[in-house]
Amino acid sequence: MLIPQTSTSLIHTLRLRRQELANLIDFPAILWSGSNSPRNFPANPFPFRASSHFLYFAGLPLSNAAIRLEAGKLELFIDDPSPSSALWHGEMPTREEIAQKIGADVAGPMAELESWVEDAATIAIQDAATWTQQTQLLNRWILPQSPPEGIDLELAKAIVTIRLTHDQAALTELRKAAAVTVEAHKAGMAATPQAKVEAEVRAAMEGVIIAHNMTTSYNSIVTVHGEVLHNEQYHHLLQPGDLLLADVGAETQMGWAGDVTRTWPVSGKFSSTQRDIYNVVLAAHDACIAKIHPGVEYGDIHLLAATVIAEGLVELGILQGNPQDLVEIDAHALFFPHGIGHLLGLDVHDLEDLGDLAGYEEGRERSDRFGLGYLRLNRPLRPGMLVTIEPGFYQVPAILNDPNLRSKYQNIVNWQRLSEFADVRGIRIEDDVLVTTEGSEVLTAALPNSASAVEDLVN
Amino acid sequence: MLIPQTSTSLIHTLRLRRQELANLIDFPAILWSGSNSPRNFPANPFPFRASSHFLYFAGLPLSNAAIRLEAGKLELFIDDPSPSSALWHGEMPTREEIAQKIGADVAGPMAELESWVEDAATIAIQDAATWTQQTQLLNRWILPQSPPEGIDLELAKAIVTIRLTHDQAALTELRKAAAVTVEAHKAGMAATPQAKVEAEVRAAMEGVIIAHNMTTSYNSIVTVHGEVLHNEQYHHLLQPGDLLLADVGAETQMGWAGDVTRTWPVSGKFSSTQRDIYNVVLAAHDACIAKIHPGVEYGDIHLLAATVIAEGLVELGILQGNPQDLVEIDAHALFFPHGIGHLLGLDVHDLEDLGDLAGYEEGRERSDRFGLGYLRLNRPLRPGMLVTIEPGFYQVPAILNDPNLRSKYQNIVNWQRLSEFADVRGIRIEDDVLVTTEGSEVLTAALPNSASAVEDLVN
Repeated sequence: MLIPQTSTSLIHTLRLRRQELANLIDFPAILWSGSNSPRNFPANPFPFRASSHFLYFAGLPLSNAAIRLEAGKLELFIDDPSPSSALWHGEMPTREEIAQKIGADVAGPMAELESWVEDAATIAIQDAATWTQQTQLLNRWILPQSPPEGIDLELAKAIVTIRLTHDQAALTELRKAAAVTVEAHKAGMAATPQAKVEAEVRAAMEGVIIAHNMTTSYNSIVTVHGEVLHNEQYHHLLQPGDLLLADVGAETQMGWAGDVTRTWPVSGKFSSTQRDIYNVVLAAHDACIAKIHPGVEYGDIHLLAATVIAEGLVELGILQGNPQDLVEIDAHALFFPHGIGHLLGLDVHDLEDLGDLAGYEEGRERSDRFGLGYLRLNRPLRPGMLVTIEPGFYQVPAILNDPNLRSKYQNIVNWQRLSEFADVRGIRIEDDVLVTTEGSEVLTAALPNSASAVEDLVN
Repeated sequence: MLIPQTSTSLIHTLRLRRQELANLIDFPAILWSGSNSPRNFPANPFPFRASSHFLYFAGLPLSNAAIRLEAGKLELFIDDPSPSSALWHGEMPTREEIAQKIGADVAGPMAELESWVEDAATIAIQDAATWTQQTQLLNRWILPQSPPEGIDLELAKAIVTIRLTHDQAALTELRKAAAVTVEAHKAGMAATPQAKVEAEVRAAMEGVIIAHNMTTSYNSIVTVHGEVLHNEQYHHLLQPGDLLLADVGAETQMGWAGDVTRTWPVSGKFSSTQRDIYNVVLAAHDACIAKIHPGVEYGDIHLLAATVIAEGLVELGILQGNPQDLVEIDAHALFFPHGIGHLLGLDVHDLEDLGDLAGYEEGRERSDRFGLGYLRLNRPLRPGMLVTIEPGFYQVPAILNDPNLRSKYQNIVNWQRLSEFADVRGIRIEDDVLVTTEGSEVLTAALPNSASAVEDLVN
């Protein structure tokens, strides 16, 4: 286990976060860190990832630990390293050393947690060993797949309130993640001319992340089949006419995520059809970022993206009609079937372990409209929120060949004209945007996104 | 999900494997593939890894699937992809297409499995969603942490018997894993002169693995603190006098593992003390491989390594006494505290999900001797077994500063002389060795291991 360099500022940050929590709830909270998830056998686990809620209030990626928060106090529960762990894992910091690093008021072994559980709320951890322990100690079912209830729900709502906007310590980490993510994308573009398959570009990108001693914040998408939204295949050959879509992000050791997508031509030169569509997506991207401002509804930003895309496709002769009307009937969603973005923080879809509790303002629910159902964030923006802006254009066979959709939009789409854009399977442009009091700041602005700048980075 | 290129030879291989199983058990077996393990939230899972037992008999890394094996027949249970999965994950092969690829006699949706469970044995899968399903369908506790009982134990023993030795199809995959593992190590050595921290060397090594569209078969060890046996930290600066120990292996898409360790000087030049110890470890490595032959006890190979290390340390003046006697009193284990190796196959410690069922011949148990307790394999060798040979020398503070051990070995170790070797914290040399009818074949022989060859690869 790694105890990274910390400072009194960590202790200070954690104290402020606890105080915020104490202002919102009047009962104790216990947050577990989680334990290793086995891969093919227990001694061969996946790389450990501490629970985001724990990371937020404990500041360190400890495993098999818990913290208890009450009225601004921090109690740490973790076992001291065993003698055999020193052989296999090296000299580990003691409980006392960890307690000091994070400013814990009290520290004890995990076994003591049992006598501190009364009236405590918690949030379910993803790994079975931990949710089993949570269930046993709290004497009620704590399951990651079940929505929280009672005081657990109150705790979840309080944590959502706090984590929805980022403090300076969080932003420092998020900027680090953004910087390495930007570097990874530049490396991917630079590696493309020499690469024969998608996997080689992925290697160049993840290599940058690994070299910075970070990890990917989600399974990378690096594909010439960008029309497959969550494509996790990397075996396709790169052909001169292909577009390569890369959705890759770095995560810092403290768990803070970057999330960026760029789409570039394998040959280093967009075809005219590719460039036309690229510029439509970029126009939507830029319009959304320009609109980001405290008080603006994120749902309206999604609709703005849809409208700009519809406008662009009308201009290109692919759609026919008035852009506003086209959005009303979800025609844009034929080509842009997902949401404009999501919260970003300790999780790449921040707080999504709590379902839509963070993404959707209380009282709001997901729409069942074709063009809105995948929207992950539906709240008014506030300074300190970090969101992604990621419009796209895709020719998804499952959508465009759907007989119902084809007949519904028969006279809306100029299918003949569309066929001229066959070399555009999928384009997405995604940046990480902080809501500021003045408007917004693009944390990933160091990565160019104009068609010509992207071409330059490939060549 | 990826359906890699297959051929009739896959169908043939799987049929032979089923037939072997049918020769050993007279009841049906159901093997689940497993499902995604969530990382920080369910929609952000760790990369999927199918269960090794499933991979062995189904041949493809399908998720959320099960096969039923009875009397040489293969029944496949998997759901057809949903329409929304086509949007997010692309066009997936249908159940029928998969069934055809693997030569299934019957294929149906997962819901049908329920009516096929009677008298069926199984093996617990690591992820909670799957072992919960196994437990419900079979109406008995199937837990990865509980040793199998009854027909489940009979099934486990039969599978151990079959998987202990590798068929040609397995060896083809294992050679691929070995080749990419070798290439990764060469890249790590070549990247060292330009690298400032361990993480950069790790990036070069894992980059090779990712570029070949493979994954690491375990969490990489790339460290200047080789004395920490399972070190998963990568932040240390590389200093000119350091040795870098890299234990990194590639795993093919079908799940077959490589597992190699090399130790090289950061400067490209071993110091004379480092070279002396390196050559002791290499002598043990070579002696063990020379001894590998059908019928030889793997435990004797471990003792041979211990003896050669003891001899070398006596020659260097670090230990005092007769090497055989030193091994009898576990003096070698002060510096070589782990076993000489383990089975290698679909798992990097092959079949270790079944505890010592595969590693230890029936009726044998782990020793409680300091120098033998970590031995993972204790069986006579047979042609077709693949094992690692990985002797090492480490100065582990937790061992060498232990007051009990220090007093026990007070007059055995020349502590003064030992202090001259302070620049040797940890050295391990590991190769993957196939037992053949004639003796052995080193699958990773393309990676040099002599001190001078290693120096050449760094420079």
